[in-house]
Amino acid sequence: MLKAAVIMGSDSDFPTVKACITSLKKFGIPYEVRVISAHRTPYEAEKFASSAIDEGFGVIIAAAGKAAHLGGVLAAFTTLPVIGIPIKSSTMDGLDSLLSMVQMPSGIPVATVAIDGAANAGILAAQIIALGEPEVAAKLVAYKKEMAEGVAAKDAKIREEAAAL
Amino acid sequence: MLKAAVIMGSDSDFPTVKACITSLKKFGIPYEVRVISAHRTPYEAEKFASSAIDEGFGVIIAAAGKAAHLGGVLAAFTTLPVIGIPIKSSTMDGLDSLLSMVQMPSGIPVATVAIDGAANAGILAAQIIALGEPEVAAKLVAYKKEMAEGVAAKDAKIREEAAAL
Amino acid sequence: MLKAAVIMGSDSDFPTVKACITSLKKFGIPYEVRVISAHRTPYEAEKFASSAIDEGFGVIIAAAGKAAHLGGVLAAFTTLPVIGIPIKSSTMDGLDSLLSMVQMPSGIPVATVAIDGAANAGILAAQIIALGEPEVAAKLVAYKKEMAEGVAAKDAKIREEAAAL
Amino acid sequence: MLKAAVIMGSDSDFPTVKACITSLKKFGIPYEVRVISAHRTPYEAEKFASSAIDEGFGVIIAAAGKAAHLGGVLAAFTTLPVIGIPIKSSTMDGLDSLLSMVQMPSGIPVATVAIDGAANAGILAAQIIALGEPEVAAKLVAYKKEMAEGVAAKDAKIREEAAAL
Amino acid sequence: MLKAAVIMGSDSDFPTVKACITSLKKFGIPYEVRVISAHRTPYEAEKFASSAIDEGFGVIIAAAGKAAHLGGVLAAFTTLPVIGIPIKSSTMDGLDSLLSMVQMPSGIPVATVAIDGAANAGILAAQIIALGEPEVAAKLVAYKKEMAEGVAAKDAKIREEAAAL
Amino acid sequence: MLKAAVIMGSDSDFPTVKACITSLKKFGIPYEVRVISAHRTPYEAEKFASSAIDEGFGVIIAAAGKAAHLGGVLAAFTTLPVIGIPIKSSTMDGLDSLLSMVQMPSGIPVATVAIDGAANAGILAAQIIALGEPEVAAKLVAYKKEMAEGVAAKDAKIREEAAAL
Amino acid sequence: MLKAAVIMGSDSDFPTVKACITSLKKFGIPYEVRVISAHRTPYEAEKFASSAIDEGFGVIIAAAGKAAHLGGVLAAFTTLPVIGIPIKSSTMDGLDSLLSMVQMPSGIPVATVAIDGAANAGILAAQIIALGEPEVAAKLVAYKKEMAEGVAAKDAKIREEAAAL
Amino acid sequence: MLKAAVIMGSDSDFPTVKACITSLKKFGIPYEVRVISAHRTPYEAEKFASSAIDEGFGVIIAAAGKAAHLGGVLAAFTTLPVIGIPIKSSTMDGLDSLLSMVQMPSGIPVATVAIDGAANAGILAAQIIALGEPEVAAKLVAYKKEMAEGVAAKDAKIREEAAAL
Repeated sequence: MLKAAVIMGSDSDFPTVKACITSLKKFGIPYEVRVISAHRTPYEAEKFASSAIDEGFGVIIAAAGKAAHLGGVLAAFTTLPVIGIPIKSSTMDGLDSLLSMVQMPSGIPVATVAIDGAANAGILAAQIIALGEPEVAAKLVAYKKEMAEGVAAKDAKIREEAAAL
Repeated sequence: MLKAAVIMGSDSDFPTVKACITSLKKFGIPYEVRVISAHRTPYEAEKFASSAIDEGFGVIIAAAGKAAHLGGVLAAFTTLPVIGIPIKSSTMDGLDSLLSMVQMPSGIPVATVAIDGAANAGILAAQIIALGEPEVAAKLVAYKKEMAEGVAAKDAKIREEAAAL
Repeated sequence: MLKAAVIMGSDSDFPTVKACITSLKKFGIPYEVRVISAHRTPYEAEKFASSAIDEGFGVIIAAAGKAAHLGGVLAAFTTLPVIGIPIKSSTMDGLDSLLSMVQMPSGIPVATVAIDGAANAGILAAQIIALGEPEVAAKLVAYKKEMAEGVAAKDAKIREEAAAL
Repeated sequence: MLKAAVIMGSDSDFPTVKACITSLKKFGIPYEVRVISAHRTPYEAEKFASSAIDEGFGVIIAAAGKAAHLGGVLAAFTTLPVIGIPIKSSTMDGLDSLLSMVQMPSGIPVATVAIDGAANAGILAAQIIALGEPEVAAKLVAYKKEMAEGVAAKDAKIREEAAAL
Repeated sequence: MLKAAVIMGSDSDFPTVKACITSLKKFGIPYEVRVISAHRTPYEAEKFASSAIDEGFGVIIAAAGKAAHLGGVLAAFTTLPVIGIPIKSSTMDGLDSLLSMVQMPSGIPVATVAIDGAANAGILAAQIIALGEPEVAAKLVAYKKEMAEGVAAKDAKIREEAAAL
Repeated sequence: MLKAAVIMGSDSDFPTVKACITSLKKFGIPYEVRVISAHRTPYEAEKFASSAIDEGFGVIIAAAGKAAHLGGVLAAFTTLPVIGIPIKSSTMDGLDSLLSMVQMPSGIPVATVAIDGAANAGILAAQIIALGEPEVAAKLVAYKKEMAEGVAAKDAKIREEAAAL
Repeated sequence: MLKAAVIMGSDSDFPTVKACITSLKKFGIPYEVRVISAHRTPYEAEKFASSAIDEGFGVIIAAAGKAAHLGGVLAAFTTLPVIGIPIKSSTMDGLDSLLSMVQMPSGIPVATVAIDGAANAGILAAQIIALGEPEVAAKLVAYKKEMAEGVAAKDAKIREEAAAL
Repeated sequence: MLKAAVIMGSDSDFPTVKACITSLKKFGIPYEVRVISAHRTPYEAEKFASSAIDEGFGVIIAAAGKAAHLGGVLAAFTTLPVIGIPIKSSTMDGLDSLLSMVQMPSGIPVATVAIDGAANAGILAAQIIALGEPEVAAKLVAYKKEMAEGVAAKDAKIREEAAAL
């Protein structure tokens, strides 16, 4: 199966990025996790992205904050789909990260998810890989059902709580 | 080959969305174009999205402006990857569309590209479908080379113009 | 009397939504509380909204955060007035929720109140239902008077405190 | 039938506000149109709002730009539902008007629609009045159907145009 | 001497507003403190503002948060200069309060200071009243000198601390 | 009578600033108009502000765009009230000018009016000077009445136009 | 003398960038102009930046719009000071470009000037190079004087125009 | 060697500014630290900036929050490069400080780094001074290598942690 790469620009992003790994595990997507900085280790970024197809990756997930160039820098060196997770930092409430990731120029898309939306980045990777992997697709369908059941359970619980108000 | 669906929330989005179709054509991705409104034709949205896999689609591209719910509404009914194009409308400079598309809750990602970034939405769709289609992948590699050559040509031209200043 | 539906997109919105229920109780508006997600339980959203008139509802209150599609999705399936409460989430300070709710396209309004403005959503529902219910209208008039008296009491207290500074 | 009041803060808002009147006419809601400024004619604002119920109004629509206090000022003097239309002015792209209208303190809601969303303000007024007027309710249902048919027609047209690209 | 009125929209603004009172005391400006809500006690707002000149006030300071209409509403009923203090509330980081106060329409200015800038509101009031009161003017000059000396003292201290780093 | 100084940071601000001069004329406030740049002619700024009281000024109006430091720089050298007009420039829709003017640190207020709110800056100056000039105060009262009559006339006109729709 | 490199991400930035070249010429700074895209020609970006010191450059000026990564990408490969010009594009009024450029992570600064502030980027480059080039320093001092004289001339002209109003 | 001046507008900025001093020390740049307020000690600002070249400074670093005029005010009195550190204050999440610093008018640049980006301000100063100081340049190259090694070490650690998830 094609692998997902989970790249974060700083190890301080790891607590947020973990939810992405949880998603990948849930759908059985093989993955590798790396810390690669677009600005501090640009040669590693180039090396990783330009060889990612040959290394068996099908999708690259990039998490970064502030001037979050990581997604764009990796996308510059590969034709794989690159998913961006804008990480909220200590200023600007994540808006800087979001705009730096999503506003890519024509020719080099970065598929951006919500600020700190690591779980969804993993799900999106699974949706992409599922196009060629029926059992991943089946897991996604099952997950959708689970989510609906989870909401239904919470619905029942809140109705009860609300009745007791 | 898996098809791409290009859904716009309003026919007024069509001039912007055309660049997406151009991208899909360039990479040889079969596609269908639709006007489906999340709010005005919600049953059609449900019908389209819930049957998209069976209809042979591999990716859904949703373009919408303002409270741009279309991507999220389609994503609610399918496990296919959904790409969102936030369309700039007459107020708020596209920020409303961007946030409405990208800030999806956990479980239901929308792969958002730049505001009015229709060309990139098509390229991203091609990158996704290319994972299972080597000739699309080859076209993407060729396109990356073309882009670089295009920039090199412009570089030469501007250097000349700048020398003449 | 027509009922108010109080729908939240996630049970995590409940602490904020409680102020809405308090308002409805104060004005004697019968209500039902539900957790329905526009994205995780879209069929339930459709089912609820499309039958809301027949179930005796006069107004639907929708509380949701981030890409807050809930109000718009419910409004797509009903002609009842839909009131939106944008819930502030962990990023973007509520601006994403506000814009996702309020910037609805022509044809499908969502009557949006302040970010986290749950109490006002309940009051607005009461104002709407009061048009056909004189005793609710009387309670609203009494409440306005109470509020004025409350401010007057605080005015007296602060004048005293300020004098002692 | 209860009437709708359409109040604008300045006659320069009239071109935008016309869409609201069109909506009211479409649904057969009787209405009166006024120019009343919260700041320049505050006594008129008070007089109008405090007597609106007695004058047979069921809903007040307030359109204003910049520091758009009109909705809040009218709401201070009545228990009728007040709908706010934030008008985009020459600076701040409508964000100032939106926040000034929607961020009302607890106790005094203003049901805010999209920036320049005058058509929706009229529809929302119709939805509110329809609770007591079955024929208005029927027109709203018919309008929803018309909108869906309109989108379907545009869908057909765009599919054709797209096929010809 | 002309008095300054310090009006806050809610008693919850008092902790922030205290710095304004401290400023007024420092410059010997007589003042009165009130809680008057533009929305909850509109008649009191009208009564206070329309009689403020006769009551011996020379300037009105209005502190309010969110849809901060208080300054504009008071200014509508008086020709006295009205100073606005936008209070930061729990959402939107004060931007809503600032825009609601400062973006007044032509004809009715509100002299807006920084978000939570209560101390400066008091100083501005003193600067205005000082035009007719030489001893207040002298105190303002002395204060400016004190501030400079305070900065110089901090300068000396930080230079020392920095040398020790 | 105390004079008003109208200082603009650039002659390109003059078209906007003219409305300020019109206001000052309407209320009979003597004024001087200057182009002084906080950054290009800082010595002139210092010279002007530090001698403004001796030159007979009672209020300084500063208009500037982008990093609109002019108001703060003038306020640093005088204890006169300084009114700031944030000028909208070609980027950021005036938000940069507004924040640069209004967010002054404690001790040095700038009384900020709306973005491009030059007319109100002149009215505010008149309101300040009117505290010591009864005939200016009388003109302000008359102006308020005129404004109300102007709105009433527009009200009549729009009611007619609306009736004809 | 050390040279300045003027790099733009797209030839569409050239009209804005010209003001930078004008500045460099005014101060006699030798320069080279290039079109290099961080995303479309990443190898060229790396090659240029990593050899810039050896090629005799003392400062690199990078102009780019939207997700303006160019400055950061060049800075990743050199220890030269990198000056960033955020270019305003068709959406987001330049805020995206500004945040993408200025919010660089610790270790890799980009010296950012105003949105579309190309002239200032050239002046800043001259200020940097002037540290080792006395005649450039002298030109900067002369330029500052010229600017002051220019403002003084405009001051005289506007005073005259204002007197004639 | 040319010295760096580190000027902060308030001693409350010192905790953030310390990272700048750490950077300067790392690269062996001599420096002086001062508290000078553009608004409270404008004469000191003028005196410092206008004599900075003669005092042996090569670069001035200015840290300030809110209406952060300090950088611009110092730049008005010198032709040295001025680096601005926008300090995040209690409101507006640093956006006010950033815009007040970076949006300088043509002629007077301020080289702005990230909000609270004090470490980068020191590095940028070192990069500027390094143009004439080979051993500083060598330290910058070494630092870049260290950073890359630091990221590589974190990469190794996170890969291990991720494997253990």
